[in-house]
Amino acid sequence: MPFYFEIIKTQGRARAGIFHTPHGPIPTPVFAPVGTQATVKAVPPRDLMEMSVSLILANTYHLHLRPGDELVREMGGLHSFMAWPRPILTDSGGFQVFSLAEINKIDDDGVTFRSHIDGSKRRLTPEDSMCIQENLGADIIMAFDECATPTDRTVLERSVARTHQWAVRCREAHPDDNQQALFGIVQGGIFEDLRLQSAAFLQTLDFPGYAIGGLAVGETKAEMYTTLDYTVPALPEDKPRYLMGVGEPDDLVEGIYRGVDIFDCVIPTRLARHGSAMTGQGRINMKRLAFATDHQPVEPGCTCYCCTHFSRAYIRHLLKADEILGAYLLSIHNIHFLTRHVQAMRDAIIAGTFPAYRETFLRQYAQKA
Amino acid sequence: MPFYFEIIKTQGRARAGIFHTPHGPIPTPVFAPVGTQATVKAVPPRDLMEMSVSLILANTYHLHLRPGDELVREMGGLHSFMAWPRPILTDSGGFQVFSLAEINKIDDDGVTFRSHIDGSKRRLTPEDSMCIQENLGADIIMAFDECATPTDRTVLERSVARTHQWAVRCREAHPDDNQQALFGIVQGGIFEDLRLQSAAFLQTLDFPGYAIGGLAVGETKAEMYTTLDYTVPALPEDKPRYLMGVGEPDDLVEGIYRGVDIFDCVIPTRLARHGSAMTGQGRINMKRLAFATDHQPVEPGCTCYCCTHFSRAYIRHLLKADEILGAYLLSIHNIHFLTRHVQAMRDAIIAGTFPAYRETFLRQYAQKA
Repeated sequence: MPFYFEIIKTQGRARAGIFHTPHGPIPTPVFAPVGTQATVKAVPPRDLMEMSVSLILANTYHLHLRPGDELVREMGGLHSFMAWPRPILTDSGGFQVFSLAEINKIDDDGVTFRSHIDGSKRRLTPEDSMCIQENLGADIIMAFDECATPTDRTVLERSVARTHQWAVRCREAHPDDNQQALFGIVQGGIFEDLRLQSAAFLQTLDFPGYAIGGLAVGETKAEMYTTLDYTVPALPEDKPRYLMGVGEPDDLVEGIYRGVDIFDCVIPTRLARHGSAMTGQGRINMKRLAFATDHQPVEPGCTCYCCTHFSRAYIRHLLKADEILGAYLLSIHNIHFLTRHVQAMRDAIIAGTFPAYRETFLRQYAQKA
Repeated sequence: MPFYFEIIKTQGRARAGIFHTPHGPIPTPVFAPVGTQATVKAVPPRDLMEMSVSLILANTYHLHLRPGDELVREMGGLHSFMAWPRPILTDSGGFQVFSLAEINKIDDDGVTFRSHIDGSKRRLTPEDSMCIQENLGADIIMAFDECATPTDRTVLERSVARTHQWAVRCREAHPDDNQQALFGIVQGGIFEDLRLQSAAFLQTLDFPGYAIGGLAVGETKAEMYTTLDYTVPALPEDKPRYLMGVGEPDDLVEGIYRGVDIFDCVIPTRLARHGSAMTGQGRINMKRLAFATDHQPVEPGCTCYCCTHFSRAYIRHLLKADEILGAYLLSIHNIHFLTRHVQAMRDAIIAGTFPAYRETFLRQYAQKA
C-alpha cells in the first residue's frame, strides 16, 4: 500500500497523523507552501527541507503551459525536475483556468481558454487534467473541478453537478492509486445541503483523500468555519482532508480544530515579496520607518535563518533597495512561521493540549503587532 | 599587527599568500564578489561562506545614500548589519560618483553630485569618503580617487595629480591602519610614465596595500595586461596588490600571472541575473532552446549546489519563467566557478604548476562552450 493514512491521536475533531506516500511520510496536520512554476518562489529546496517542509504544491495549469508537462515527464517528473525529493501535490488546473485564463467556453465536456502567457487557444477536460498530472508525477493529484462563486446558489448547483460528472471521469481515467493518489474535491459553496450531497457523492468513487474546494474565495471567515463545521464530519474518518488555498494563521487553527489535515497557500511567499512578515501577533509591514534602526529580529524568539542572523533594520534596507535577498529572507521566515505553527498544533494534539494552544494563539494573534 | 601580508610561495611574478585582517585571513590570490547594497545580489551570506568566499566588496556610494553610513554604524557596522563575519572591502565612492551620479562640479576639493536615487544634492571629499568608510567599518578601505578615461593623456595627467592630492588627504584623515587598512590607488591609464609616477608617489604615503585603478573601463585586454606588466613591479613586494573591477576568468589568470593578489567584480552575479553561466569553456546563455530538455548540469563536473542538484533544462525553465531561483542558482554557480578558479591558481602556485594551469585554462577557455 504505497499510500495510507495513519491517525496517531485525536482531540475533539482535530487529528494528528501521518499520510504515507511513495516519496516519504507527510506528518499531518501539514501546511504546504506553493511552488507554482515548479519552484517555491525565491526559496531553494534545501532551505525548505531544513525547515522540515514535508509537502509542496505545484500548479498544473502553469506547468502545462510552461515548460509543458511532457517536458517535465521527459525530465523524470516534477520531483527530479525541481530537485524536491519529498511529496508533491498538484492541483487540477481548474482553479487557475477559471481565475487566470481568458475563458472561451465552458461546457459539460471541459473548458476552452486562452493561455495567459502567449494567448494560445487551449482545451482542458477531466481526462486532460489526469494525463497532465500523470506526466507531472506528483504524489497527490486532484480531480478536475469547477470552482464557482460560493454564495450564488443557482450557479453553484449546476457547478456542483458538473464537478461530480467530472470527478467520475477523473476516477475512470485514473482508477489506480498505487503511483499517485487521486483526491476528490467537495464543492457546494456555503450551502450545507450542497456540501453534504457533494461529500456523499464523491465517497461513492472511493478516493484515498478528500479536498474541500471553493473556500477562501470571497466568503467571510465565519462562513468558512461554519461550512467546515458541517462538511468535515460528512467525510470519511480514515482519509486525509485537504482544505484548498487556505493559509492564514488563524484559519489554520480553526481548520485543524474542525478536523482538516492538509492546507496549502501562496500567502507566505506572496506576502514576503510584498514586504510583509507573518508573526504570532499578525502581519508586519517590514518597510515601516520605525524599523530603520531596529536591532531586533523580524519576530523575536523565532529560530529561522532570517531571525537568527538579521535585524529588522537590515530587512527593511533590503526591501527599500529592492534586493532579492529581502524577498528570500522574508519567505524563509514566513514559511518557517507557518510550518512551526502547524507543527506546534500537531504536537499539541498529541500532547492533548490543543484547546489551550488554540485559545492562546487566537488571543495573541488578534492583538496584532 | 591586525593587518599583515604573508607570502607563502611565488612562481614567476605570481604569489600565493595570506592577508591577515581583524575579521580573519584572506588567502590570496582572491576573488571578491560584490555586495553593492550590503548584499551580494540574491545570495545569502551562509551560501557565500559554504563556497569559501573569504572577502566581499561593498559600495560606499550606494550605502552612503541608502540606508546611510551613519545608520550602518549605528547597527554595529557592515559586518554586523549584513551578517557577514569575514573580511569586507569598501571602495571609495569615487568610481560610482563618476559613473552613476549626475555630476554638478568636480574641483580640487571634491565632487558635488546629485543622488541617482532621489536627486538630492550631495558633496563628497576625500575626508568625507574616509568618514563614510569608517562608519561602514570594512576591513580594507580605499583612498578617494578620480577615475578618468584610461586613454586620454591630457585628462589623465590632471586626474592623476588630483588623485595624489586626494590620497595625501585620505592618509591624513586616516593615518592609523590598526582598525581598517587604507589602500592607495595607482592611476595613470595606459601610460607607463604616469603609472610609474603614481606608484612611486603613493608609496611615500606608506599604505598597507595598493590598488591598480582605472582598468577594465574601455581599454583592450592587451592594453590592460601591458599596463600590469610595468605597474605591478613598481609596487612593493611585501604588500597586497588589488586590481579593481576585474573578474573575467582569463583576466584573473593574466592578473595573477603578473603578480596581482586581489580582484573584485560584479560579473558573476550580473551575468547570472541575465541568464549567463560562467564556465571553463566560456559563457553560456542558459535560455537557449537547446537546453530545454538537457539533463546535464550547467557545467558538468562542477561541485556547486546548482550543478549537483539541477539540470540545464530546469535552470532554463526558471529563467524563462522569470523565477528568482534562476538568478540565485546561476549566481551560486558563477561565484563558485570564479572562487574555485582562483583557488586552483593559488594551489597551482604553491605546487609550482601555475604555468601549466595558465596555459591549459586559457586554451580551453578560448574554445568557448
